[in-house]
Amino acid sequence: MSTPTPGTGIYLVANSASTAGRPLADIVADAVAAGVGTIQLRCKDLSAREFLAEATACAEHTADRALLLLNDRVDVYLAGRAAGIRVDGVHIGQKDLPVELVRSLIGPDAVLGLSASTEEHFAAVSTLPAGTIDYLGTGAVRATPTKKDHPTPLGFSGLTSLISQAPLPCVAIGGLGSGDAGEAHAAGAIGMAVVRAICSAENPRDAAAALVDEWTRASRTVNA
Amino acid sequence: MSTPTPGTGIYLVANSASTAGRPLADIVADAVAAGVGTIQLRCKDLSAREFLAEATACAEHTADRALLLLNDRVDVYLAGRAAGIRVDGVHIGQKDLPVELVRSLIGPDAVLGLSASTEEHFAAVSTLPAGTIDYLGTGAVRATPTKKDHPTPLGFSGLTSLISQAPLPCVAIGGLGSGDAGEAHAAGAIGMAVVRAICSAENPRDAAAALVDEWTRASRTVNA
Repeated sequence: MSTPTPGTGIYLVANSASTAGRPLADIVADAVAAGVGTIQLRCKDLSAREFLAEATACAEHTADRALLLLNDRVDVYLAGRAAGIRVDGVHIGQKDLPVELVRSLIGPDAVLGLSASTEEHFAAVSTLPAGTIDYLGTGAVRATPTKKDHPTPLGFSGLTSLISQAPLPCVAIGGLGSGDAGEAHAAGAIGMAVVRAICSAENPRDAAAALVDEWTRASRTVNA
Repeated sequence: MSTPTPGTGIYLVANSASTAGRPLADIVADAVAAGVGTIQLRCKDLSAREFLAEATACAEHTADRALLLLNDRVDVYLAGRAAGIRVDGVHIGQKDLPVELVRSLIGPDAVLGLSASTEEHFAAVSTLPAGTIDYLGTGAVRATPTKKDHPTPLGFSGLTSLISQAPLPCVAIGGLGSGDAGEAHAAGAIGMAVVRAICSAENPRDAAAALVDEWTRASRTVNA
C-alpha cells in the first residue's frame, strides 16, 4: 500500500487564534484521535519560541498518527527538527518565502504545501522541478474571517473549475465545515481543510469525527 | 588588524515601520555611506517574501562595507544565503527561537546577536558554549515607541551597572540618538543602536554621519 498524498482527507488548520482560549495541543489531540490525517499549525499571533513550544506539544499527539506541518515559519520547522521534534513539513502561502528556496532549506523528504488559488499560481507551480511541492491548498471556497487576505470566494463550482486545471493534488479550503465534504470531494479535492469547524467547535473531537465520517462516506460513494 | 566585535560603533536597527514611507534600502544606503557599521533589518510588518526582498535590496549597499543582520527570521537569513545574498547573520530576542538552535541552523561563521537586558538573561548566556553569541543588545535605556514590550527603562546609570555584569560585549539600545553617544560609550557599550534617530530623521544620511562622528569622538576621548 502506498502512502497517500499529504493532505488527503480531513485536514485541520490548527489556528492558535481560533481556539476560544483552549490549548491548541488539546484540539490537535482531539482531531488526531478522531482520524484527521494532516495538522497544519498556524500561529501568526505567537513568537517563534511560542510556536516551537506549540509544535513540540502537538508532535506528541501527531507522531506516527498524522502529519504535522507548520505554517510559514521554516525556521521553526528547522529548529524543531534540530531539537528532535517530529514535525513533518511546512505549508507556505504566496507571500511567504519562494517555494524553491523553501524546498532547498527543508530537504527532499519534508512535506511542502503551497496555497495556490489562481491560474497564475498554477502556471508558476507548473514551472517548478518535479517534487518541489507535494500538494496545493486551494480556495477560498467561501469567505472566512480566519484569513483577511483571501481572494474572492470561489464557491464549489469555481473550485471544481479551478481544480480541473491544477498541476498537483488540491486540498479545498475556506469556510468549510459540516455538510461540505461531499461537494469538496466531488469538486476533485483530495482533502478538505477546516479551521473553525474543529478549532471553534464546542466539542472538537466530536466535530472532527463527524467530518472524518462525512469525508469517508463521500470517498466511498464516488469510488463505489 | 583584527576584525572588531560585531555591533561596534553606531548600529542601525532599520525598522520597516519607522521610515515615514521612504524605502528602507535608501535609509540603509544613507547609513552605510555615513559610516554605520552594523545594520539590523527589523521587518515585523512584512511577510517573509517581502523581508527577503528588503534584505536583497539592502545587501547591495552593505556588502563589504557593513554587517547586515536580520531580526528574528532565521529562515529569511537562510533563504538569503541560499539565494547568494550577502546577509551576515541574525539578531534574536528572548521570545525568538532558542539561541543554541539558532546557532546550529546558521552555522559557526554567521553573526548572532541576542537581546539580553536582565541579570537572568546574562546568567542564561553564561551557560552557553563559547562562540554561541557574538554580542548582546542591552536596554531599553529609555522608553521607546518602536518596541512595545521592552522592560522598564534602565537609564544610563542602570545601563552602566548592567553592562559591568555582562558576559559579552553589549550594544546599548532604547530611545537613543543625538547627544547620547558619550554616555553610552562611558557606560561600557561597544556600540549604540538607534532606530528613529536615523530611520525617522528628515535627512537620514546627515543624522547618521552626526551620530558616527559623535561616537568616534566619544571613543577617542576615552582612549586618549
